[in-house]
Amino acid sequence: MSEATFLGDLLQTIAERGRRLLARAGPPDDGRGGALAALCERLLASRGEASSLALAQEILDRWAGLPDGDRRAFMTMLLDDFGPRRDRLDAAVEAYRTAPTPKAAQRLHEASEPRRQELIRRLNAAPDGMAALVRMREALLALKADDPGLAVVDDDFAHLFGSWFNRGFLVLRRIDWASPASVLEKIIRYEAVHEIRDWEELRRRLEPPDRRCFAFFHPRLVDEPLIFVEVALTTDMPATVAEVLSPERAPIPAEQASAAVFYSISNCQEGLRGVSFGNFLIKQVVQDLRRDLPELATFVTLSPVPGFAAWLAREREAPDSEALGAEDRALLAALDDRGWMDDPEAAERLRPVMSRACAWYLVHARNGRGGVIDPVARFHLGNGARLERVNFLADRSARAMRQAHGMMVNYLYELEKIEANHEAFFDRGEVATSSSVRRLARRQRSPEVKPAALPAS
Amino acid sequence: MSEATFLGDLLQTIAERGRRLLARAGPPDDGRGGALAALCERLLASRGEASSLALAQEILDRWAGLPDGDRRAFMTMLLDDFGPRRDRLDAAVEAYRTAPTPKAAQRLHEASEPRRQELIRRLNAAPDGMAALVRMREALLALKADDPGLAVVDDDFAHLFGSWFNRGFLVLRRIDWASPASVLEKIIRYEAVHEIRDWEELRRRLEPPDRRCFAFFHPRLVDEPLIFVEVALTTDMPATVAEVLSPERAPIPAEQASAAVFYSISNCQEGLRGVSFGNFLIKQVVQDLRRDLPELATFVTLSPVPGFAAWLAREREAPDSEALGAEDRALLAALDDRGWMDDPEAAERLRPVMSRACAWYLVHARNGRGGVIDPVARFHLGNGARLERVNFLADRSARAMRQAHGMMVNYLYELEKIEANHEAFFDRGEVATSSSVRRLARRQRSPEVKPAALPAS
Amino acid sequence: MSEATFLGDLLQTIAERGRRLLARAGPPDDGRGGALAALCERLLASRGEASSLALAQEILDRWAGLPDGDRRAFMTMLLDDFGPRRDRLDAAVEAYRTAPTPKAAQRLHEASEPRRQELIRRLNAAPDGMAALVRMREALLALKADDPGLAVVDDDFAHLFGSWFNRGFLVLRRIDWASPASVLEKIIRYEAVHEIRDWEELRRRLEPPDRRCFAFFHPRLVDEPLIFVEVALTTDMPATVAEVLSPERAPIPAEQASAAVFYSISNCQEGLRGVSFGNFLIKQVVQDLRRDLPELATFVTLSPVPGFAAWLAREREAPDSEALGAEDRALLAALDDRGWMDDPEAAERLRPVMSRACAWYLVHARNGRGGVIDPVARFHLGNGARLERVNFLADRSARAMRQAHGMMVNYLYELEKIEANHEAFFDRGEVATSSSVRRLARRQRSPEVKPAALPAS
Amino acid sequence: MSEATFLGDLLQTIAERGRRLLARAGPPDDGRGGALAALCERLLASRGEASSLALAQEILDRWAGLPDGDRRAFMTMLLDDFGPRRDRLDAAVEAYRTAPTPKAAQRLHEASEPRRQELIRRLNAAPDGMAALVRMREALLALKADDPGLAVVDDDFAHLFGSWFNRGFLVLRRIDWASPASVLEKIIRYEAVHEIRDWEELRRRLEPPDRRCFAFFHPRLVDEPLIFVEVALTTDMPATVAEVLSPERAPIPAEQASAAVFYSISNCQEGLRGVSFGNFLIKQVVQDLRRDLPELATFVTLSPVPGFAAWLAREREAPDSEALGAEDRALLAALDDRGWMDDPEAAERLRPVMSRACAWYLVHARNGRGGVIDPVARFHLGNGARLERVNFLADRSARAMRQAHGMMVNYLYELEKIEANHEAFFDRGEVATSSSVRRLARRQRSPEVKPAALPAS
Repeated sequence: MSEATFLGDLLQTIAERGRRLLARAGPPDDGRGGALAALCERLLASRGEASSLALAQEILDRWAGLPDGDRRAFMTMLLDDFGPRRDRLDAAVEAYRTAPTPKAAQRLHEASEPRRQELIRRLNAAPDGMAALVRMREALLALKADDPGLAVVDDDFAHLFGSWFNRGFLVLRRIDWASPASVLEKIIRYEAVHEIRDWEELRRRLEPPDRRCFAFFHPRLVDEPLIFVEVALTTDMPATVAEVLSPERAPIPAEQASAAVFYSISNCQEGLRGVSFGNFLIKQVVQDLRRDLPELATFVTLSPVPGFAAWLAREREAPDSEALGAEDRALLAALDDRGWMDDPEAAERLRPVMSRACAWYLVHARNGRGGVIDPVARFHLGNGARLERVNFLADRSARAMRQAHGMMVNYLYELEKIEANHEAFFDRGEVATSSSVRRLARRQRSPEVKPAALPAS
Repeated sequence: MSEATFLGDLLQTIAERGRRLLARAGPPDDGRGGALAALCERLLASRGEASSLALAQEILDRWAGLPDGDRRAFMTMLLDDFGPRRDRLDAAVEAYRTAPTPKAAQRLHEASEPRRQELIRRLNAAPDGMAALVRMREALLALKADDPGLAVVDDDFAHLFGSWFNRGFLVLRRIDWASPASVLEKIIRYEAVHEIRDWEELRRRLEPPDRRCFAFFHPRLVDEPLIFVEVALTTDMPATVAEVLSPERAPIPAEQASAAVFYSISNCQEGLRGVSFGNFLIKQVVQDLRRDLPELATFVTLSPVPGFAAWLAREREAPDSEALGAEDRALLAALDDRGWMDDPEAAERLRPVMSRACAWYLVHARNGRGGVIDPVARFHLGNGARLERVNFLADRSARAMRQAHGMMVNYLYELEKIEANHEAFFDRGEVATSSSVRRLARRQRSPEVKPAALPAS
Repeated sequence: MSEATFLGDLLQTIAERGRRLLARAGPPDDGRGGALAALCERLLASRGEASSLALAQEILDRWAGLPDGDRRAFMTMLLDDFGPRRDRLDAAVEAYRTAPTPKAAQRLHEASEPRRQELIRRLNAAPDGMAALVRMREALLALKADDPGLAVVDDDFAHLFGSWFNRGFLVLRRIDWASPASVLEKIIRYEAVHEIRDWEELRRRLEPPDRRCFAFFHPRLVDEPLIFVEVALTTDMPATVAEVLSPERAPIPAEQASAAVFYSISNCQEGLRGVSFGNFLIKQVVQDLRRDLPELATFVTLSPVPGFAAWLAREREAPDSEALGAEDRALLAALDDRGWMDDPEAAERLRPVMSRACAWYLVHARNGRGGVIDPVARFHLGNGARLERVNFLADRSARAMRQAHGMMVNYLYELEKIEANHEAFFDRGEVATSSSVRRLARRQRSPEVKPAALPAS
Repeated sequence: MSEATFLGDLLQTIAERGRRLLARAGPPDDGRGGALAALCERLLASRGEASSLALAQEILDRWAGLPDGDRRAFMTMLLDDFGPRRDRLDAAVEAYRTAPTPKAAQRLHEASEPRRQELIRRLNAAPDGMAALVRMREALLALKADDPGLAVVDDDFAHLFGSWFNRGFLVLRRIDWASPASVLEKIIRYEAVHEIRDWEELRRRLEPPDRRCFAFFHPRLVDEPLIFVEVALTTDMPATVAEVLSPERAPIPAEQASAAVFYSISNCQEGLRGVSFGNFLIKQVVQDLRRDLPELATFVTLSPVPGFAAWLAREREAPDSEALGAEDRALLAALDDRGWMDDPEAAERLRPVMSRACAWYLVHARNGRGGVIDPVARFHLGNGARLERVNFLADRSARAMRQAHGMMVNYLYELEKIEANHEAFFDRGEVATSSSVRRLARRQRSPEVKPAALPAS
């Protein structure tokens, strides 16, 4: 990473020279978003290297200091004033209508490119420009929620990020206890599934011989992981988080493991929302682990089911639920007693109905657009994984109880079937399932389903 | 670079898996460019990671094996069949004409994007995809020369390369005798100004303490320099190539140098033509050298004048030449005697008139578009350098004698004046010159110009 | 460090092969120190690579598992059974007495080399052998305290370590927030002067732009610092620890600093006691900082005075103390009131007498061997530093109050005078002092010493 | 290696400071070896870091500039004046005779240490001190040839080098076409078996996928290999050099190889003669290759037989040769015709007798000390390899024809048998052989050769 740092330093120096030139020209701005427009126009007009870098840095620095209101004004300005040149565009439209040649289509494409795309490209050249743009889009996404018109501006960021974060640019790196602290603190910060409270807990996730962590990095975002996955090497497919994360567990030598369990996947950069990495990450990590540990035979996740509780609540209210019968509803009433999970008998009574309901939810339930409801299920099934097992009371954390009554799921990655599963999922909406999950999901209301197929927690 | 290699390996593995999937599906192609179309369509339709990478690799591999005729057919196919979708584009045009909102303009921009842009982006994801695309464009540039219609396709390559080779991605690295041989052999191969015959000559350019070489690299083009500059650290501004490159010269300690002489700048990747790096390279190298060697006070080139001989021939024929008078023409007749440069007296007679003519050429001569004729002059003057000195009989190599009758030029980079020179050059066409060159260029036909201002060779 | 790791892996593999050979030969040992003797003899007799490495590893592993009593037995065995071969030695003595030629002297030297030296050299070849030997000597030092006869064995460790940790082998590395966590945790663990409580405190010592940390490493002790120094970049010579370590202080840009303050130096490896690194470390760090930050003009420590309180207690008891007069004694009685440092008036009354006493202690007090008493003073004065200032109530931590009533000292490193100071200190016992300290130390009992020369705390 | 460089720079700076101190003290020397004695005494007396490093550097620099005669004088001075202190040694001898305690033996060992050992240790601390000492010993070895008394001085170098080049310090690195040119030029220079004529030939040894090269490095000898081995990955055990090195051969993918052929092993540092690396190198490389290429099943050399021709000449002259009978001698007369190897029929007639003779030479022939004659055979057999095959007309180079009439040998490394072979070779003088070689070596001439001299099959 030192070369990136070195280049960063040089860019910094060059930008600072230009900044002095800028300063000599008098302060071009009152610090408000409005006046940034003039700087943006100057940047687009600039042909000089030093002043161009300096202008880019100046704009990014000022942006970073803007209050929220001015940020909205800035984005609105990008929308209104940095679209395509109207006259050029209209002329290109007319030329295309007159003679729709490939060349005319190309000119039309060029003429319709909003000027803010070139602006963003020039901002990217500043030292740490890429990181600043990622943060800028993070802010834009928040603004867009209230102001859908800004979606047009966001499209430009998304388009350019899609090109700049092309998977060819991504670098997979293992994260371990010998990684730089400056990277590790980001693992603590960005972990989104099973919180890491402090450095000692981080060490337990990284240092034992049966733990792995991998992240994608981008050459221009130094020490900033884009996405990372935590892996436990085990001898069995785990049914609960406690098995994986208990501080008391005894680590095993990596060579003894037969399964790799992906128990946490976290996106790190909100500003890169919509640029997909996860799909690719899991498959690369599977390849990497197989190469280093040829004994590994099973690649499986231990995943949350974040939409289950909300769906279940709706189904319990729906008189004509396909998923739940009257008996199920009666049994599920026990969920309303907050302490049920600490009452072994109550829990055992809930186990079969909850397992069936969860399996149904994942296999049959659909949202308004006809898609699988659960976002985590969509991700792994879309990747070509198979829904392997539903696990009752698998995560007792407050969040998991709230979102899924503690249910978790194993998704299985079989390299040989990934492509076929993936195609079946997207082309025909088919959810790949193990036979046990299929059986569970088959007849929801039948009281005679045997819970024996489920693991004891 | 090992991480890039590592990622490359993984991509390779993933692509190979997909390739086996592909192979099982039967050979989709007869090996001709035409059938590549089907693969390209499949790649654009693909959603699966593995098959997508495999398809991309397959297309690039087949392309690499195509004979020239099929390559032209492939490019024509990209032009004809991978433009924008006609129906979507026409609808977007109508929508925009009905209501030219920012959103309609954006949709128009999207609809007018040729499908080959997405195709190129997907090809880029293949292992070594970037390098293959750079070679593909190199071939395209050659095809375009005969077939101007392909310029539309080239625009798409150029547009995407401009974004991917954004200067923020470039990494400056010093090249020295401890650099990998796999990089050094490319320095030998790509040196475009003063040929490097073998490894011993390369060593003389890199190993002595008063030599430097810097190159830009891109994270996805491993061991492939994009552009490099060779630097001599000296105590004086050199007037001849021999001073700089003589095998007999005695190296000096770097700390004793007061001048850094950029005596060779070579672009390495023909496929990146039009993506400008040189401008930025020189300024970064100046910064870098100043940091390491604070004693350096002068940054100057020793540059060829490749257009001079052709221009001079025209002027000698032009009866109303502003640059040459009758007396000049008479003197210049000595050039037609091939051995003049080995005849000291003949050379001394030519020195003043040649120096004046060269200064005039660089300062006053303009091409049809009103620009400075000499491409090297355009480059350095556009960078903000100053035309410092013209050097008579400075390079006796066959090429330099043919292109410039042996003349060379020093361009001076004064950091404080770069921006102003640059602006003056682009805004008002002004050529920054030293007073001595200005004097030389002032009155071409006056016999009384004193040659004393020129260095003895 | 990856190469070291790589080699380590290979050594591991080779050693494991040999171990299997060993295992096949049956367990050669009952796990007690005594039976290790046989393994040691086998190791000395071995000529085979694999079995030799395996034997070495086996011995080191068994040693690591020995209880204390058996460790003592092991060391006694090294003393008694692995000295020089008696017969060879006696013959060499006789040969030398007969004809004391250079060759006879050399043979005598060889014959008198205890066999344990070769044993230690062979143990060193094991994977992680060096680290194991350092831990082994750490244990030996503890055993030696009760058993002075083991000093002979310790001499051999010390002799070999002196050669293996020759300064030419040492690698200086900067430690910062981007250093591996596996190294940083050792900084937390080994910090011996100002405790680092947790990772956040560590970050405050490393991450701000005005902080530096440097350590010596050895190529065979991967991720194990030998000694490290923490540096604060400041604008003034600090008088208190609080100025340097306060979490509330505002960091300054490194370029604005004029002073580098060495405020903590910690040896990390007890097993390397007596192998001196600190001397060299400070001078290298001074060189390094000057190169990177040419504005730095002052290099100074902020050091504890660990022997002061004990000395002062003795002087207060000594009726004929040269250092303290009756009036001083009366004033110093206030020290017996534990809360004095929180009583500003009491503290101000103590300031002059304490400052004088501390200066006297450092400049004039001598131990039984005629040396400066304070070990920290001995270290810096021996390095050629100058005693620059004594600081009253400079460290309010429990340890500093107990050891030095809160006093601290600045030692100044002036590169130009280091050699001269060093020579004067060793040759003539002279303590280099600033004029203000000299004045303070001059007349201890005089009541009229002006405290104005001292900094306000 | 950058850290080593960095440290080197710092040492340089520190040494330069000290050198200025030194210079100020006036030139201490007339540049002759004699006056170096004074500098050496000063270095031994020095306690200061800077002056000590400067003195060490000064001595090494002056040494480097000495003419041969003065170098001899310097070494003689080390012998005569830098032995142990006579008085201390005599006292220690007496003390030991009085009471031969462990402590007295230890004191005797210390007192008998020649002062030049500490001198060498201090010289080692200079920047590049290690490299300078290796060159110094290279010179010493040459001087020793004429002056056996210097062997005592050489013993000290050898003793310290043995400790400093302890195998734990050695770093195995792969050398390939991406290695620094500054290392690669040393591979060209040091190749001792099959000459590398230029960079293109070097590339053919390193770049193809079926070639490997590994070297040992030491942390203090930057870019200086100690020993390297060249490996060809093949599908068969090769019988000739041409198979391995032919420029026309078609490389195979590494994964297709079943054999690794060690076809060239070169020691690089004459100054490290007697410090053995090769033994260890081959075994590490075998481990390394097995890890990366699990398909490799055979590890074998293609080795020269440098002593064969000389031995054969003696046997042909010896009337009572056990190895050759009259018929053999008659056949071998064909060797005296220089062009025999270009005459296929002559060669075929020689093949059986030459193969038998070579096998006999390697298996049965012994030198005066009872050891195997051939040095290459001694090396590999001592390593535990097996004599696998003798190859007729395997190397047609001038050297191979002169030394061995073109014969070469394959030695096989079977990891499982290495230790046993090694023990048998050293303990009982047994040469491990394949059955075919055994058969060849069995009956050289007449049926009455005693089979008792042969190893049991």
